[in-house]
Amino acid sequence: MIKIGILGGGQLGYMFLQNALQYPCEISILDPAADAPCALHAHHFVQGDFKDYETVVAFGKDLDAIGIEIEHVNVEALRYLKSIGKRVVPDPEALAIIQDKGIQKEFYVNNNIPTAPYFGLDNWEDLKSKQDINYPIFQKSRKDGYDGKGVQFLKSEADLDKMLQAPSIFETPADLDREIAVVTVADHLGNIVTYPTVEFVINEEYNLLDYLLMPSTLPKEITDRAEQIARDVVKALKSPGVFAVELFLNKDQSIWVNETASRVHNSGHSTIEAAYSSQFDQMLRTLMQLPLGSTKLFTTSAMVNLIGAEGQTGQAEIENIEELLTIPGTFLHWYAKTITKPGRKMGHVTLVNDDLEQLKQNIKQVNATVKVVAKK
Amino acid sequence: MIKIGILGGGQLGYMFLQNALQYPCEISILDPAADAPCALHAHHFVQGDFKDYETVVAFGKDLDAIGIEIEHVNVEALRYLKSIGKRVVPDPEALAIIQDKGIQKEFYVNNNIPTAPYFGLDNWEDLKSKQDINYPIFQKSRKDGYDGKGVQFLKSEADLDKMLQAPSIFETPADLDREIAVVTVADHLGNIVTYPTVEFVINEEYNLLDYLLMPSTLPKEITDRAEQIARDVVKALKSPGVFAVELFLNKDQSIWVNETASRVHNSGHSTIEAAYSSQFDQMLRTLMQLPLGSTKLFTTSAMVNLIGAEGQTGQAEIENIEELLTIPGTFLHWYAKTITKPGRKMGHVTLVNDDLEQLKQNIKQVNATVKVVAKK
Repeated sequence: MIKIGILGGGQLGYMFLQNALQYPCEISILDPAADAPCALHAHHFVQGDFKDYETVVAFGKDLDAIGIEIEHVNVEALRYLKSIGKRVVPDPEALAIIQDKGIQKEFYVNNNIPTAPYFGLDNWEDLKSKQDINYPIFQKSRKDGYDGKGVQFLKSEADLDKMLQAPSIFETPADLDREIAVVTVADHLGNIVTYPTVEFVINEEYNLLDYLLMPSTLPKEITDRAEQIARDVVKALKSPGVFAVELFLNKDQSIWVNETASRVHNSGHSTIEAAYSSQFDQMLRTLMQLPLGSTKLFTTSAMVNLIGAEGQTGQAEIENIEELLTIPGTFLHWYAKTITKPGRKMGHVTLVNDDLEQLKQNIKQVNATVKVVAKK
Repeated sequence: MIKIGILGGGQLGYMFLQNALQYPCEISILDPAADAPCALHAHHFVQGDFKDYETVVAFGKDLDAIGIEIEHVNVEALRYLKSIGKRVVPDPEALAIIQDKGIQKEFYVNNNIPTAPYFGLDNWEDLKSKQDINYPIFQKSRKDGYDGKGVQFLKSEADLDKMLQAPSIFETPADLDREIAVVTVADHLGNIVTYPTVEFVINEEYNLLDYLLMPSTLPKEITDRAEQIARDVVKALKSPGVFAVELFLNKDQSIWVNETASRVHNSGHSTIEAAYSSQFDQMLRTLMQLPLGSTKLFTTSAMVNLIGAEGQTGQAEIENIEELLTIPGTFLHWYAKTITKPGRKMGHVTLVNDDLEQLKQNIKQVNATVKVVAKK
């Protein structure tokens, strides 16, 4: 039986595990947190730091295949594991490109993949003396960016004192119509499939992500282009695995790649309910070198994140779960995290409905109903 | 967080667990086998005998809700746990009816539920002196019948020496058009929902079950009647839970209840992929007293059992998994049982396809492809 190891045991590993259990395989998880969501449920759990070379090598050396559910892991260790014949998905070289936003941007440019104009500065202080800067500009630190961390918006010179203190790229903001993403899967033979384009729908009142919609309502001409760009990215990465290619659709209808995740991703969560084969199923298939699953959808779906409420820190609890589940076509994914904090991803709700207007009504109702709080 | 205990940790508990992990709950499993499929994956695993009164009481006394994935458990212990305020699903009284085929048959008769004519004999030897018996007749032992065990077909008086040595019922065989089943779910408020009728499709060459088809191709008039009978059975049982009502459709189009399972069941497996809410999701909802899920189907589906091959006993292995997964719309469920034996249920394959003819072609291909063998 194939022995699979995953670096990271958070919610992505957890949803991976739920599906992987139905295949003939044995799953080991490496995570620094003893109470990681996966800790109790994998075949084997190792508490340890996936950023540490020795720890990752020790974890992987008796396994057959090693995957990731988080990108900030030790690439050198994965290179070594690959060199001694282990199957590593994604390929360590692809991961190395993704981990460093400077290298990632160069990769897009070298492969003729459209992306926002940018320049890199390893000494960020040089920005102050640089000529011809068109503000506003985004500063993104080359490494360890995650979920909005490592990004700074510089509106004008007056913001220079807010700069992140790290080697960075500086990017022209998109003239944004909306953000979209394409979850793309490649197998070890080079076959590449995409799920239909996902659309990030913004709550205009709060200017925050309201929900993700799959498939997007955009014209086919646009989604065809988005999906082709995503395939181009993954083809150029020359690696098996699940990738989420995040894209900006500009107002002039041009498309830029924002960034690529080299793992299962938030934007593909509704594939669990709505697609023949979910992104987590594809992850398992790439690790087992099984044929890719079908990315066909059964129905239109939306995904709403469940975020820890403001002012609530402590033992996590979900409010109004009964009311939530009376809303037709809702599915709860609770991530089994012990502690809630403001803004922490604690779970998500998928909604399915072939009637888009009804789906939107139901999303509103979900947002008005469910809340993640700290136990009193 | 609600603490749920399940008596039994085999494949049904395993599929229950895969889904339950996405809810805020904590799952304990009781099973006599240290290598039960659930052993490594539940929050807590207790090795012990679910037929033993003390073991079941000790297992349940610190939990909030207790469910089953096998029927041959200690009902007295469940009665006691209910009496001290534990939520028990299904109700121990419903389980007591189901566990004894004599009581189950009486229950059908008393509730005007159509079933095969029968008589009971606690002293089975009395059959030899009984007058007016119309052979052939089925003998079914009152207790511990399971998966075809505890059933004897008596073609004529010449078969009397083959009789099962146990208190039994003796049943007139159906004039069978086909076997069907309706998976039915009741919540604690008395709401009852059914999945569409499932049809058992027989391989005519071998006269063995070939696959289960959901929904059945039978006329709506017949499936409406079947689903009404199933609701009547579950209503009369006065218990929350998931039930599989197995039915005979006679050639004259009358319907008889064969027997009822008071738990998730083989005939509902394809609801994992094909229905909004699977039977395993409903089981969790009944234990958490959450609103019942939707039984609506996304697509037509079939389920093929993966049975241990003849002449193969030992470390289980599945052959041709790659070829299996190239067949469109196939989903593998491997039950993680260590040892294969001839006839043992080792897994199943679900197939989905809106085109029934294509679905049947794909089923043939699945049956010709996949095999469960012992490792050499």
